[in-house]
Amino acid sequence: QIEGYILDHFRRNQTLKDVNVLITAGPTMEPIDPVRYISNHSSGKMGFALAKAALLCGAKVTLVAGPVHLEPPAGCTYHSVKTTKEMHEIVLQLFDQQQVVIKAAAVADYRPAEMAMQKIKKNQTDLTIQMVKNPDILLELGKKKTHQILVGFAAETEQVAAYAADKMKRKRLDLMVANDVSREGAGFQHDTNEVILMKPSGEMKEIPLASKEIIAQEIISEIVTILNRK
Amino acid sequence: QIEGYILDHFRRNQTLKDVNVLITAGPTMEPIDPVRYISNHSSGKMGFALAKAALLCGAKVTLVAGPVHLEPPAGCTYHSVKTTKEMHEIVLQLFDQQQVVIKAAAVADYRPAEMAMQKIKKNQTDLTIQMVKNPDILLELGKKKTHQILVGFAAETEQVAAYAADKMKRKRLDLMVANDVSREGAGFQHDTNEVILMKPSGEMKEIPLASKEIIAQEIISEIVTILNRK
Repeated sequence: QIEGYILDHFRRNQTLKDVNVLITAGPTMEPIDPVRYISNHSSGKMGFALAKAALLCGAKVTLVAGPVHLEPPAGCTYHSVKTTKEMHEIVLQLFDQQQVVIKAAAVADYRPAEMAMQKIKKNQTDLTIQMVKNPDILLELGKKKTHQILVGFAAETEQVAAYAADKMKRKRLDLMVANDVSREGAGFQHDTNEVILMKPSGEMKEIPLASKEIIAQEIISEIVTILNRK
Repeated sequence: QIEGYILDHFRRNQTLKDVNVLITAGPTMEPIDPVRYISNHSSGKMGFALAKAALLCGAKVTLVAGPVHLEPPAGCTYHSVKTTKEMHEIVLQLFDQQQVVIKAAAVADYRPAEMAMQKIKKNQTDLTIQMVKNPDILLELGKKKTHQILVGFAAETEQVAAYAADKMKRKRLDLMVANDVSREGAGFQHDTNEVILMKPSGEMKEIPLASKEIIAQEIISEIVTILNRK
């Protein structure tokens, strides 16, 4: 019922009418060889819920997603990518024309230094995978940003607020969505989430356990507030 | 039409009536930390198609699957696992009471030597993941087998027949299903496949590109032939 009320409110107000919003979602997948890969447990649900919420507010949404098992919401421009490098390339390309960028994707921070062209045979008892750092997309966007509102996510398993506050500062974010993915019902794979919204001013707002749709609407509301104050 | 014909034939003949068939399917997922993991591109479609084909022949099917996005076929006993170790444990437990075991899962051959209890922070430029060998389930089953018909899969990207023949011998298989996962429309993720069935006698049979349902029926037919000759 509350959800219905908020949706109606959004639809009536079209608070993001014709605003260009870029959202990234899901994990990325880094190949070790043609068969094996490294990835993470992001399902893309949070990013897709954000895309839907932004569309309802009249935004022009571009959704860039890693490998997920979800239907892209009707009305968005959809780009499917695999690796962090691919996501990096397309997001940087599209950045200039955006007013709002929400990086909900859980990109792989590292990738195997080399991808084997053939399947690695299991002759050895041990195997060492050398990993190198991927480009830090959010950090680059923070440095590059001019007019854009930049929203980041921090998925942590300990010292959540401290890590998230540090990340917000280093990456010059306008809004940080922090969540403790080790909590019951929060974060990856779940249909629910529980987050803390943090702003550079030090303002914090806890959003208790709710569906990712509700959480998405709260985040979008916060973004609208920030946009209106600009 | 051909598919319908084969299905009718199976249903009429109940060629595996009350035979205990254990099938493994999908990838396994090896955690690096609470967020990251190593896996492979297996979708589980081949193993699930085999389970359906065996059920149609009247078999008592136990399906042990890694993380997949598929509905278990009605009528089978279903076990969901994550890691190779978990699959190893349950398959070994159930092995004695089986007449047929089909290992269609693409288990991770290696797992990270240690799983970090907290999310690894990206402070370092490089990251080295030390991997250790997982138990070789198929090799163990080959050593342990008494009356069981043991069927294995080889997903290769080069020297397919040679690698597959060697694996069949080392693991004491009764039937090997070899496929070149680098071919168009074959192997992981696809709805189609193209395989070579190999027997210890040296007999080989190529099954050209077809749906995984058709391939599954061909494999089950071959197993019925082997069972009847015993």
